Amino acid sequence: MDHEARLHDQLAFLLEADRLKQVLRRNPLTDGSRRENSAEHSWHLALFALVLAEHAAEPVDVCRVVEMLLVHDLVEIDAGDTYAYDDAAHADKAERERAAADRLFPLLPDDQAARCRGLWDEFEARSTPEARFAHAVDRLQPILQNYLADGAAWREHGITVDRVRTYNKHMEAGAPRLWQHAREILADAVDRGLLAE
Amino acid sequence: MDHEARLHDQLAFLLEADRLKQVLRRNPLTDGSRRENSAEHSWHLALFALVLAEHAAEPVDVCRVVEMLLVHDLVEIDAGDTYAYDDAAHADKAERERAAADRLFPLLPDDQAARCRGLWDEFEARSTPEARFAHAVDRLQPILQNYLADGAAWREHGITVDRVRTYNKHMEAGAPRLWQHAREILADAVDRGLLAE
Repeated sequence: MDHEARLHDQLAFLLEADRLKQVLRRNPLTDGSRRENSAEHSWHLALFALVLAEHAAEPVDVCRVVEMLLVHDLVEIDAGDTYAYDDAAHADKAERERAAADRLFPLLPDDQAARCRGLWDEFEARSTPEARFAHAVDRLQPILQNYLADGAAWREHGITVDRVRTYNKHMEAGAPRLWQHAREILADAVDRGLLAE
Repeated sequence: MDHEARLHDQLAFLLEADRLKQVLRRNPLTDGSRRENSAEHSWHLALFALVLAEHAAEPVDVCRVVEMLLVHDLVEIDAGDTYAYDDAAHADKAERERAAADRLFPLLPDDQAARCRGLWDEFEARSTPEARFAHAVDRLQPILQNYLADGAAWREHGITVDRVRTYNKHMEAGAPRLWQHAREILADAVDRGLLAE
């Protein structure tokens, strides 16, 4: 495959990726003014990973974590964002996202498609320190954003602190110190009436 | 500085960074439905860099390029986005952005503040192959987005193809093949009446 053909396929993928900016998550910006989209969320998580890498449970290749976080939500272009506490939507989430991965990554030249798919599979499987740390920041950020936005998504969807603790407790495997911090934030959110007991 | 104190400062920086999601650029999403914000733009550029690194003028450390692109627009939290073709706003752009960098990066622990500031200075100075390649993708993406959105920002602001060529020609130093592609897109945009001669 020559340079021109590769560039053609690479740009087709990158311009398709633009659609992630239109996928709305349930979680708010910190000021509560609007819901966050999955593209800006991915940027924020990559920045979280760069800055917080020293708190990972095990030493991580930060570059690999960042790369993983930049591609981890692309499947939402087809599959949509699945809210953490929507049990019904979680029933077929894996299937929907796998179909999306099967369509999206192969837009790239084969070598790059395989690399991105590998990163996405690794993230989903939490099979490496990098994937577990990536999950930890992916869970920390919405807790902080909700806390600062007066519990917006928690209150809107009637979420209790037990559900938040259960859903996010695997943070501990990727970054115990961040999980400890999240637990303190959640306790304070309950005290302040932002999150139900 | 202990772990707790570092985490406190790191989170203060990361939550301040959330405000970049509210900085609107002049350029549209590819479907023209709305203007792009600087956070989702930064995510998109990081993905561009990962995918297009083989087209850099010189071999680049992609990880460093991605890191640079993730932080390069943070100054816009204070300084706002300065439109490429707004000559008046460019008069004090450097000064406004330097003041923003002086405030924002020092929210981090000293070692990380210095690293981020170094990356930002390097980007601004275009002093390395990484910075020149980062600039090339930062210029390619808006050209592609405008082209796909029927020339939205070009038409709204009465921009001519000569101005676009002049403003972006330093792309050639970072990624000659991407500049060649951009020139072909611009020529086609003129033919299709999306960009004035």
